[in-house]
Amino acid sequence: MRSKKTDSGIAAGQGELAILHEIRRRTARAAHGGLRLGIGDDCALVAPRPGEELAVTTDLSIAGRHFRLDWHAPEAVGHRALARGLSDLAAMGARPVAAFLSLGLPRPLTLRHGGKPAWVDRFLDGLLALAAAHKTPLAGGDLAESPLAVADIVLVGAVPRGRALLRSGARAGHQLYVTGVLGGAAAGLACLAELAGRLKPSQTQSGLPPLPHIPKKFEAILAPHLYPQPRIAQGLWLQRRGLASAALDLSDGLSTDLAHLCQESGVAAEVNSAALPLHPGATLDQALHGGEDYELLFTSAATARIPRSIAGAPVTRIGRILKLRSGRPQITLLTPQGPQPLQPHGWEHFS
Amino acid sequence: MRSKKTDSGIAAGQGELAILHEIRRRTARAAHGGLRLGIGDDCALVAPRPGEELAVTTDLSIAGRHFRLDWHAPEAVGHRALARGLSDLAAMGARPVAAFLSLGLPRPLTLRHGGKPAWVDRFLDGLLALAAAHKTPLAGGDLAESPLAVADIVLVGAVPRGRALLRSGARAGHQLYVTGVLGGAAAGLACLAELAGRLKPSQTQSGLPPLPHIPKKFEAILAPHLYPQPRIAQGLWLQRRGLASAALDLSDGLSTDLAHLCQESGVAAEVNSAALPLHPGATLDQALHGGEDYELLFTSAATARIPRSIAGAPVTRIGRILKLRSGRPQITLLTPQGPQPLQPHGWEHFS
Repeated sequence: MRSKKTDSGIAAGQGELAILHEIRRRTARAAHGGLRLGIGDDCALVAPRPGEELAVTTDLSIAGRHFRLDWHAPEAVGHRALARGLSDLAAMGARPVAAFLSLGLPRPLTLRHGGKPAWVDRFLDGLLALAAAHKTPLAGGDLAESPLAVADIVLVGAVPRGRALLRSGARAGHQLYVTGVLGGAAAGLACLAELAGRLKPSQTQSGLPPLPHIPKKFEAILAPHLYPQPRIAQGLWLQRRGLASAALDLSDGLSTDLAHLCQESGVAAEVNSAALPLHPGATLDQALHGGEDYELLFTSAATARIPRSIAGAPVTRIGRILKLRSGRPQITLLTPQGPQPLQPHGWEHFS
Repeated sequence: MRSKKTDSGIAAGQGELAILHEIRRRTARAAHGGLRLGIGDDCALVAPRPGEELAVTTDLSIAGRHFRLDWHAPEAVGHRALARGLSDLAAMGARPVAAFLSLGLPRPLTLRHGGKPAWVDRFLDGLLALAAAHKTPLAGGDLAESPLAVADIVLVGAVPRGRALLRSGARAGHQLYVTGVLGGAAAGLACLAELAGRLKPSQTQSGLPPLPHIPKKFEAILAPHLYPQPRIAQGLWLQRRGLASAALDLSDGLSTDLAHLCQESGVAAEVNSAALPLHPGATLDQALHGGEDYELLFTSAATARIPRSIAGAPVTRIGRILKLRSGRPQITLLTPQGPQPLQPHGWEHFS
């Protein structure tokens, strides 16, 4: 029961309580905003301000599916897990209130090796750094030993009642916009796969698989994949001004996510391929179908004035919303060779 | 993209969307209470009533740790996953508002075999039946293919602001109570292990491990383990009357959970072994250290009048709260052989 925890980090041979104490130590001063009670009781308590409602989302990250222990540094795994949840809040125009983390880890990932921090320590470094950047306290969660590393992240955000950005409000004639640039995450992933492929398979002293060595010159191309930035400020901006008729975040890829938006709104859409803001180094295919860019895709009435940048992120008009008609594809891609149906080719599990 | 889903259940060879559609179909009419927007957008929206705050908890269930595919029927796995979260709400005195489910499953668990429902269908049967009994809509979540079956359940409940039952309010002189009977889940688990041990290992046609055959006469002894009943009504009763100074749910076992309560309240406690309400068939050891009973453990001022039963569950006084003193164990067990220190021997991961 008594924790033999050292001053910082998680010592070898410690139990769940030691990890819990460590998380609590690192999050103790983080409680603010709508979080009234954090880690330590049966539940956390969250109080929205008067007139607000709460947005809740969960995102599961599984080793081998959403990340690879032999490709992704623990800091990046923690960052990406939280970024997925924050991006869902951004897509609703919600301000983050609290995050929760359910973490299942193989024992080696909880142990220190030769004075180096444990994998879980570095995972928390990445997660808590992004949480701090968005003033989001880690308010609770669950811990378990697991043969497979899994992290389920839960985000709770607040939004004035009735003002959340939904997927269902797009109407024919509305314009289609995207923040930032597209395809960067897919291009980064392709680069990471190539760097990892050059490694000779070998085991490190810790029993964990070795990570690829990343030369400095590749850091910029890898960043959108390893450290995506959720568009919280942009989502809040759109929500506060009431300018977006519909919005979602690009997690599965433009072709798939736009199909979701069209489905929920009961509309069709037309995308101009020449207008797509490609990430330098990304292909058109990566911009159309590559997931995990975590940019916002939103629609706006034709009369609305959308600026060229919102809170520091460029905003690009990439198409428009059309009526849904039988015989016409739900999404049409305008190309120099003429219009083509755009089929969703993004990420789907179990397919 | 188009789902080839059949009229009910999840067909073989379907993707994430088909499972999502199936969940959506089965939960479409469930939205009520504080849930304003359920499955289908980036987040669900939850609105507490004026003066309420929200309680949030997450509980991770992992195959091989919290359940076994070769021991537990899928309905029981679903029921138990949700029961853990509901029990956390009960411990805070909160009314359930919404549940979220992050589910990672190996592909065989999503497929039908010979016209029989898929494992995931039966898992949802168990989960949604308990959800319906507590009027808790499934409001969202995440789905992924996973080499290991994992289910993270998130519960959101509502409680009048400042009225939640916390672990930290127990004071010297307060009486210690427990709802229901203790040790039943541990006794049931021991029985299940024995029944499973009689099975010859063999594979079923579906590729899933065979479940133990459970003769009718064992159903009652197994029920507390397989289908624990969270004490939502009892938690609400205590919260509304302001009678509990501290409370938590018995998930890790009395010895461990009482230690948590003492730790958070900065007190010691004394438990009278003769007073413990043992489940028929359970040993004292199972009552003291067996987890997953999901009864409520609570304290109350000596002057408070606690009835012998609350909302149909018996309530038993099992001890009292003492001052924390150096040289005295945090928890003392009064036995016919005299007082003994009670060490926490409940469930702890990574230990």
